[in-house]
Amino acid sequence: MTAPTPSRTLLLFGATGDLAQRMLIPSLYGLDCDGLLPAELRIVGTARSAHDDDDYRTIAREALGRFVEAERLVPDQVERFLSRLSYVSLDASDPAGFSALAERIGAPDGGLSIFLSTAPSLFETTIEGLASVGLTGPAVRLALEKPLGTDLASSREINDAVAARFPEGATFRIDHYLGKETVQNLLALRFANLMFEPLWNRTGIDHVQITVAETVGLEGRVGYYDGVGALRDMVQNHMLQLLALVAMESPAQFTATTIRDEKVKVLRSLRRIDAESAATHSVIGQYGKGAQDGTGVPGYAEELGQPSATETFVALKAHVDNWRWQGVPFYLRTGKRLPERASEIFIQFRDVPHSMFAGRGARLQANKLVIRLQPEENISLMMMAKQPGLDRQGIRLREVPLDLGLANAFADVRRRIAYERLLLDLIEGDPTLFVRRDEVEAQWEWIDAIRAGWAANGMEPKPYAAGTWGPSAAIALTERDGVSWHD
Amino acid sequence: MTAPTPSRTLLLFGATGDLAQRMLIPSLYGLDCDGLLPAELRIVGTARSAHDDDDYRTIAREALGRFVEAERLVPDQVERFLSRLSYVSLDASDPAGFSALAERIGAPDGGLSIFLSTAPSLFETTIEGLASVGLTGPAVRLALEKPLGTDLASSREINDAVAARFPEGATFRIDHYLGKETVQNLLALRFANLMFEPLWNRTGIDHVQITVAETVGLEGRVGYYDGVGALRDMVQNHMLQLLALVAMESPAQFTATTIRDEKVKVLRSLRRIDAESAATHSVIGQYGKGAQDGTGVPGYAEELGQPSATETFVALKAHVDNWRWQGVPFYLRTGKRLPERASEIFIQFRDVPHSMFAGRGARLQANKLVIRLQPEENISLMMMAKQPGLDRQGIRLREVPLDLGLANAFADVRRRIAYERLLLDLIEGDPTLFVRRDEVEAQWEWIDAIRAGWAANGMEPKPYAAGTWGPSAAIALTERDGVSWHD
Repeated sequence: MTAPTPSRTLLLFGATGDLAQRMLIPSLYGLDCDGLLPAELRIVGTARSAHDDDDYRTIAREALGRFVEAERLVPDQVERFLSRLSYVSLDASDPAGFSALAERIGAPDGGLSIFLSTAPSLFETTIEGLASVGLTGPAVRLALEKPLGTDLASSREINDAVAARFPEGATFRIDHYLGKETVQNLLALRFANLMFEPLWNRTGIDHVQITVAETVGLEGRVGYYDGVGALRDMVQNHMLQLLALVAMESPAQFTATTIRDEKVKVLRSLRRIDAESAATHSVIGQYGKGAQDGTGVPGYAEELGQPSATETFVALKAHVDNWRWQGVPFYLRTGKRLPERASEIFIQFRDVPHSMFAGRGARLQANKLVIRLQPEENISLMMMAKQPGLDRQGIRLREVPLDLGLANAFADVRRRIAYERLLLDLIEGDPTLFVRRDEVEAQWEWIDAIRAGWAANGMEPKPYAAGTWGPSAAIALTERDGVSWHD
Repeated sequence: MTAPTPSRTLLLFGATGDLAQRMLIPSLYGLDCDGLLPAELRIVGTARSAHDDDDYRTIAREALGRFVEAERLVPDQVERFLSRLSYVSLDASDPAGFSALAERIGAPDGGLSIFLSTAPSLFETTIEGLASVGLTGPAVRLALEKPLGTDLASSREINDAVAARFPEGATFRIDHYLGKETVQNLLALRFANLMFEPLWNRTGIDHVQITVAETVGLEGRVGYYDGVGALRDMVQNHMLQLLALVAMESPAQFTATTIRDEKVKVLRSLRRIDAESAATHSVIGQYGKGAQDGTGVPGYAEELGQPSATETFVALKAHVDNWRWQGVPFYLRTGKRLPERASEIFIQFRDVPHSMFAGRGARLQANKLVIRLQPEENISLMMMAKQPGLDRQGIRLREVPLDLGLANAFADVRRRIAYERLLLDLIEGDPTLFVRRDEVEAQWEWIDAIRAGWAANGMEPKPYAAGTWGPSAAIALTERDGVSWHD
């Protein structure tokens, strides 16, 4: 396999949007400052609004001012970065507009990466527009932002439209969770150390919890979120990716194919939650009014302005039906208006088979591994240690965290935005941290069954007060198994 | 098993000696301050020199001033502690003297603990003296400080003399390493956590190193050390205890019998280093003149004032011939005038069986567990983690220490002297952390074979410069196996 050629042009669709301003432009600036972008890389922004190059540079300059720490804004570097930018106004629904774009881009043989962060309804016409003016071919890569459909059928439709013009190897489906350091570190932890693998199975692990908790409510996402809900917004992509990385067998090499092969095996081994099990293995909720940080906040329906059957919270009890994981529950939960913003993977190891300390009054807690993604990234192993002292009433053992101390151990390294990694991989043509079509479809297949199960059982979201950990049924979901959510 | 009765009297032989002043008196003071001594406990000191009670309290007060941190010397507490002390002058070689002692102690039925830190040559007469005045019996416990003999035969002689008057259950043989927090923590680490046991064997561990390095030379120990040497001064007791705790099977309970049963099994499984293997499995050295901390220091013979065949350094390659440890070398080394004062157990785990990162240019280092006893106590697990960053030249993994951070995690707890633990266990009658006769004899049996091997091979200590890590043959001992000492 020869190394792919870095792109000389990066074409951003949705170039004035929220994602571009918050993430993409600051990420590209960060890469540029560190000398990681190809020297000749041009960045062409496009969107519907009418701007000239100078307007767009002003927009980008303002975005940097808002989303990059002031001390990293070095005037020379900002100017050099902005000089890479230009802008072409384009209405993707108007095929004629693509000619002007093609003229600006020129022949794509020098290498072109295209980043689509537009409404999915525009994917197909955009792709056809690109093809109509020759912006496809072996030197072109296409990155797609979520949502890639709302179910298996619509996902297939999008993927088919993409596949008609771009081979799978040039299709870079983004799940920005895969760009997070801690997610990649999970691979290092599992497969660069001897410590964990002997325990990383049904013999050593009692259960796994994956939590993605948001404090925000609907906010600016009214148009998108309602009718989609937590299951499809969070579980289908990010949380199933995390689950796959936790559960997968060891890949033989660190390559796009081997890693994604292993992930898709996990996704295909997920036990169906369907009409029969939806009521016992899933809980959905919708927040009502409540309080967050001591301030009253409205409920979802109130924010939306009308009643809705969309779930803003979902908790699942999942199983991976293979040799390694038989009998080990994977509890997933995500929601809006929860008490804190926290994303984490929590691995609960089993109890020691026999405690020699029991007769001395010491109570052991089973080992735990906590992999925090948000608000800060950290990995922490909880172990039992003897509490110093003379232990007259038996032996005092205490749970002590062993921190991987990413912040301390690597204090010399700037923490990057996940998109920096992903944009650079796109420009350089490394698909390892992008989602392959078979993964997306396996995800949707599992998700669709859950939604069908809800429908078959007439399940409606249960109310929960904003600022709480979801409906009480979500607590019951784990407590029935003698497991408590790790808050 | 009913709990033993705490002693009401502690009788210290060698009460004015170095160990008493440095360790025993400060330890007893520490226990007293924390309210851990029985309220009525009297401490009777005895030695040859003529002192009255006040003299002895003055000696004790001065010892506290020298060996206890000033902020812990609270006048009220010091006075209360000193009021427990009294003194009886006694020449142990004169049987008549014991009557006065017995009179001072009274009938031992209330519980008596006796601590012998005198020359071993006095053990037998002291024990007979005690017996002659009735200071034996079911309420009396006897603690013995090393050295307990210089080989199996002399050790048996001492043990027989003790056994004639004290049952094994009342005989508390001290190895102060067993009083160290970190040594006890090793048990917690191994048996209160699920993490280590699956790897703690020939499958997971490549080799073990145990180092006890001193910077001091002969110093004040001329009378004792010459003719004894490093093997008998350090390996026979402390280092074999550490080895036994690392290598033992999991005890069923935390009790004196079960733990010591497991330790003795290890000691009896040590493969003999004898005439056939002494030359290849052991290295002995004696320091010549050299430099320590930039200052010139004399050689051993010069300090001694005459040539000597005593080893001041020994390195061994040991094996535990049982199912768990077959093929795993235990490298032991100890010496005087080494470059730093350090006692540690170093567990080198095996490499991962396959590195998925190899193709990406990442070099893995196998996991290590470092258990430090001196100069500070700490436990650290070395693991591989991904170095944050974009890894354009493959994946950068870095070795990161996970510290059990005993100092930080338990900052609220004062670090105690090992003797505090052991004295309190003696007073309260818990023999778990003391050495049983069969252990001592198994240790000597193994040690005697090594010495016989040296004699049979005519091995003499090789010279090494003070301030270095011993003779170069000690380096070769491990390097032949592709192993480097952990410095």
